[in-house]
Amino acid sequence: MSGELLAHIGSPADVKALDAADLPQLCAEIRAALVAYGKSHGGHIGSNLGIVEATVALHRVFDSPRDRIVFDVSHQSYVHKMLTGRARAYLDPALADSVTGFTNPAESEHDQFVLGHTGTSISLACGLAKTRDLLGGPGGAGGVGNVVAVIGDGALSSAIAFEGLNNAAEQGGNLIIVFNDNEMSIAEDFGGMYGPLARLRASGGTAEPNIFRAFGLDYRYVEHGNDVAALVEAFEQVRDCDHPVVVHIHTHKGLGLDAEDAAHGIRDGRCEANHWQDPFRDAAPEPGPRKYYGEMAMAALESRFADEPGLVVVSPATPGSNGITRAFRERAGAHYVDTGIAEEHAVTFASGIAKAGGRPVVATSATFFQRTFDELQQEVALNRTPVTLLVFAAGVSDADNTHSGAFDIAMMANIPGLACLAPTCRDDFLDMLAWSTSAANHGPVAIRVPGEAVLAAERAGGYPRHRNAGRTPHADEPAAAPAPGAEPTTGLRSTPHAAPAPQTADPTAGSRSTPHTAPALDSHTTPRTDAQDAQSARFDAGTPWDRYLIAHRGADVAVIGLGDAYPLAERVAALLADDGDAPVDATLVDPRRYDRLDAPTLDRLAEDHRVVVTIEDGQLDGGWGERITAYYANRDAVGRAAAPAAAGRSGGGDGARGPIVLNVGAAKEFTDRVPLAELHRRYGMEPERIAARIRGAIASCR
Amino acid sequence: MSGELLAHIGSPADVKALDAADLPQLCAEIRAALVAYGKSHGGHIGSNLGIVEATVALHRVFDSPRDRIVFDVSHQSYVHKMLTGRARAYLDPALADSVTGFTNPAESEHDQFVLGHTGTSISLACGLAKTRDLLGGPGGAGGVGNVVAVIGDGALSSAIAFEGLNNAAEQGGNLIIVFNDNEMSIAEDFGGMYGPLARLRASGGTAEPNIFRAFGLDYRYVEHGNDVAALVEAFEQVRDCDHPVVVHIHTHKGLGLDAEDAAHGIRDGRCEANHWQDPFRDAAPEPGPRKYYGEMAMAALESRFADEPGLVVVSPATPGSNGITRAFRERAGAHYVDTGIAEEHAVTFASGIAKAGGRPVVATSATFFQRTFDELQQEVALNRTPVTLLVFAAGVSDADNTHSGAFDIAMMANIPGLACLAPTCRDDFLDMLAWSTSAANHGPVAIRVPGEAVLAAERAGGYPRHRNAGRTPHADEPAAAPAPGAEPTTGLRSTPHAAPAPQTADPTAGSRSTPHTAPALDSHTTPRTDAQDAQSARFDAGTPWDRYLIAHRGADVAVIGLGDAYPLAERVAALLADDGDAPVDATLVDPRRYDRLDAPTLDRLAEDHRVVVTIEDGQLDGGWGERITAYYANRDAVGRAAAPAAAGRSGGGDGARGPIVLNVGAAKEFTDRVPLAELHRRYGMEPERIAARIRGAIASCR
Repeated sequence: MSGELLAHIGSPADVKALDAADLPQLCAEIRAALVAYGKSHGGHIGSNLGIVEATVALHRVFDSPRDRIVFDVSHQSYVHKMLTGRARAYLDPALADSVTGFTNPAESEHDQFVLGHTGTSISLACGLAKTRDLLGGPGGAGGVGNVVAVIGDGALSSAIAFEGLNNAAEQGGNLIIVFNDNEMSIAEDFGGMYGPLARLRASGGTAEPNIFRAFGLDYRYVEHGNDVAALVEAFEQVRDCDHPVVVHIHTHKGLGLDAEDAAHGIRDGRCEANHWQDPFRDAAPEPGPRKYYGEMAMAALESRFADEPGLVVVSPATPGSNGITRAFRERAGAHYVDTGIAEEHAVTFASGIAKAGGRPVVATSATFFQRTFDELQQEVALNRTPVTLLVFAAGVSDADNTHSGAFDIAMMANIPGLACLAPTCRDDFLDMLAWSTSAANHGPVAIRVPGEAVLAAERAGGYPRHRNAGRTPHADEPAAAPAPGAEPTTGLRSTPHAAPAPQTADPTAGSRSTPHTAPALDSHTTPRTDAQDAQSARFDAGTPWDRYLIAHRGADVAVIGLGDAYPLAERVAALLADDGDAPVDATLVDPRRYDRLDAPTLDRLAEDHRVVVTIEDGQLDGGWGERITAYYANRDAVGRAAAPAAAGRSGGGDGARGPIVLNVGAAKEFTDRVPLAELHRRYGMEPERIAARIRGAIASCR
Repeated sequence: MSGELLAHIGSPADVKALDAADLPQLCAEIRAALVAYGKSHGGHIGSNLGIVEATVALHRVFDSPRDRIVFDVSHQSYVHKMLTGRARAYLDPALADSVTGFTNPAESEHDQFVLGHTGTSISLACGLAKTRDLLGGPGGAGGVGNVVAVIGDGALSSAIAFEGLNNAAEQGGNLIIVFNDNEMSIAEDFGGMYGPLARLRASGGTAEPNIFRAFGLDYRYVEHGNDVAALVEAFEQVRDCDHPVVVHIHTHKGLGLDAEDAAHGIRDGRCEANHWQDPFRDAAPEPGPRKYYGEMAMAALESRFADEPGLVVVSPATPGSNGITRAFRERAGAHYVDTGIAEEHAVTFASGIAKAGGRPVVATSATFFQRTFDELQQEVALNRTPVTLLVFAAGVSDADNTHSGAFDIAMMANIPGLACLAPTCRDDFLDMLAWSTSAANHGPVAIRVPGEAVLAAERAGGYPRHRNAGRTPHADEPAAAPAPGAEPTTGLRSTPHAAPAPQTADPTAGSRSTPHTAPALDSHTTPRTDAQDAQSARFDAGTPWDRYLIAHRGADVAVIGLGDAYPLAERVAALLADDGDAPVDATLVDPRRYDRLDAPTLDRLAEDHRVVVTIEDGQLDGGWGERITAYYANRDAVGRAAAPAAAGRSGGGDGARGPIVLNVGAAKEFTDRVPLAELHRRYGMEPERIAARIRGAIASCR
């Protein structure tokens, strides 16, 4: 058990060269390495412990990379990486970061795809097999032999996995689908198929209904999925098979975890509230923003469950990561639904709940909401159902390239009728959640859960800290609309977060007052069209956060920081004010809503500000700041065209043009575990550099 | 058969009031009305003919709207509309446009959702049932009784439908899933599940494997799905059922079509190359743009099949609408795959094909690509597989609100690494397709198939018309990069469309040269990060269309028209030139690529143009034109900051600022069958109004 076998595995050929009798020892060494790695580094340890023998058997039987093995979710690929030249990354803590947490073709020819979202392996494998068969079949010009999809640990319940199953049999030809059945999804197993699967296991793979046969697929069952000899035998039977076949293996997630792991609450590969084993959890006494704001949101909702039977939290897996604790789930009862890894269902289900009068809250990461883009647009926004989306882990990210949160603004804020809110403090966050789930709201609302920057700012200010206190409401703000959360707060859980009354609709508010984004509705030719358009107009119904909040009224320069970028805007303003030679008293703006603009406030800012800066924690292309730039560009051109005499009214730099607008945010790119400081430097999202750009802009228009 | 029963059906209550013996006559009248409606108006006639009896039986047994019936795809809802107060729309041609082609809550309380994309009904129904059960169950405060999802005509093969099936049994409670099994998808039935389904039908619903039971669901079978009495009996058995149950009904699509329909090639509800019956097809001798450019693309690809075994066309249903004719499909053999209505699989499958060295082309509508947003980002763009996407029916649209093509630019062009091309003539279109499917291309490419405006312009110019002829290449354009398609052409099919060589990479080209969209890559802290970022940098590998084409070089005003908006840009330029009092010789630009900018050309334009106008056929918010506005705003501010002395170099209007930028395009809204002319008026997308805006902008900066 000293690792002597594993240390000599440089490639799959070395696995093949071992005596069969040595394979159990290799598995034991791998398992020991994983357990140690989990304690020193963390990771998806449980699922990998379950698939040790299967991975060894795969590389014993198949001939990677000629035979193509696609792991899904590829967080189950640690053992595969150990066997394909990357064992040292798991044995030597100094090299732990030399591999990613998912398969990655840039790392090894044995890795087929970067695959971090679930369920796509069967479709990808169908594609590999299709090309192989077009190019002469196995042994033909394509250089592709067997094609193997390894799917499990909850991935089978993803929508696209079923499309893959349905297409596999139709396609025909060699295709081996290894279903890693560890009786678990990421949190609980979920779905009607798990009962029949349990009976299938109990019958040794003979019972009907068999979901794989129902998709027209051949089928084998391996009860002892942690017996390497049994797996080798099963894989040898299907190797070079001339048609698609499912090998259903029954494995034990977390096999090999020890008493120390158990003491940390990790049983059967389940880490407390998360499937990611984090050895540093105890060292960090304070929760991160996902758990902090997630728990806060759940507590606020839970306090209403008794009086509001239709209030429901829907989580498409990974609840624990978002502060939806096991204890909450148990207390919530019917008020909580885990759909398994099925984001599309989760969002669509929520639309149905809302349609019937319920108040659903869908909680997941920005990156996983991507899977639901079409349902967000069609089933939710077009149908105008009051669904609340809690968008966790949004923003520029040091995560794997598969899990970046930098893309949600461009994805969500461009969907018609989806109100997008970005709170900059916990009170706004809770007020927004209270309002969006109240009867006052009639449409879908996305709330971008605050991230590390806002949380750090709140912590730096001490508890309770209410950052709205002392803010100056915009002069335009109607008296009927109190600044949400303006009441004094006495503590986190005891704050009464009444849903604020919706602001009186201002017909001139929002980008709709500008010709280019939405001109006044013309009269239409048919009554039907009118009816439709009346509905369309309602899509932009107001929220209490439609007007930007002027946190500090200065002059000359306005810095608008969206959501988690607001603390950065604060620091920029402080830097500008602190310059002894030429202090700038910048106006500081918290926009709060980012799917549309607050045109009256932007117009006011243009009167006495020469420079307007937008800062957002996400991709600039297609994002929020560009819209402000375009707003001013088109507004001013139109203003000149319509009333040239008024051109001089601008208090801006050159008299004839609106303010100079600078946009700060992320580039359009995938980034892979790049430290946040590095990304902020790359994107110029540093207070000093933003302040320098602003000073340059000021200088240019003097 | 004179329609006397149907004429008296004002609501479902009238269906219940009929003698049971009269139901067959009602069905016959409905069927006759549908056949006549198909001939006068067109529509999804075949699927509705198959579901006549089932719909009558549903309204006979259930109590809509208390009982909620969700149709999926809701193009199967014509009969439902007839029975819920809207029969006249199908009987009186003058009223045909008083109803939409899908269910719509704005039309009737009996319509639950606007549902035009497939497979979401089960999830929506789960949501309705969930709220009902939270509010006291059937008969409780929620006012919801039975919940019925009617799914079929191909919708069952959609990814999300399986997520719905998997979640339904888990949820429990009353839920009735009527599976309308007409043995057809939209074109061919596709998928491994259809074999077991056929055996299930042949056994009278008793055979295993039973896919519904595999999802843990109760199950009933009705062989005679066009026998209204049998259906009434089956639905009565499941009404008020306390658990989820599937009622599998075997129906005959197109039942009742007559000899005249057959003469038009419509058999069994299958319309030639489309599932939409179009009575005016014969009256329109020229095909529309989808069929015209689609057939052209398929012909170009087909000519290469013999030499390029890895070239594959993938269509997630509706091939005929996109010019992928039945004859082509038959000739293409293994080079063509219809995945059924399974867009996610189609795109992911294509990534697998490309990864193994094949060259896949995925063809579907802009609106259906929405279902694949996450797979486009993760499986295709992040994995950098050379998949070609043919995006049909893109642009501002007079279609139903479920099928608008106005959203694809914001969706696709903001995905890192997805090259997006917009041809403005058939030769560019074919060149782009040839290049993207050639070995010269190493990444994913979306090609926005030209629409009505480009086709009309091409037709107005006569065949063969090559609109690139006479264009002036940009002075910056490297000599090594011939303008694609610059060779003289002699005719449509005979033109040699060689893949042009990729342009020499210009390190300063593209938006990456500007600090805000992508600064120069800084040095990184770890080798791993460097490796990743090298990969990231490659994501912006060039295409031969990275430089804007200056179609006409003028001065003062530049009009940039993207793709199908290019003919409009031409008309604007012509209007400006024709003004006798103050003619403007505008520069006319065809940008061709819209996922990134041609910064050198934009910089050049700024030197001698005071006004730059962008026109795009799609939503402005998150779109392409805003990026040009933001580019100039940030470029000029940065230029001033970095080198204030150079501020005067601009030849623009005011010396200190870059050009005035105007953006023309669509508002962010859903529109439902609004005529195109009306939309163009609403959005200011009319040549006269654009020219007026330009003149206003010119006047303001004099």
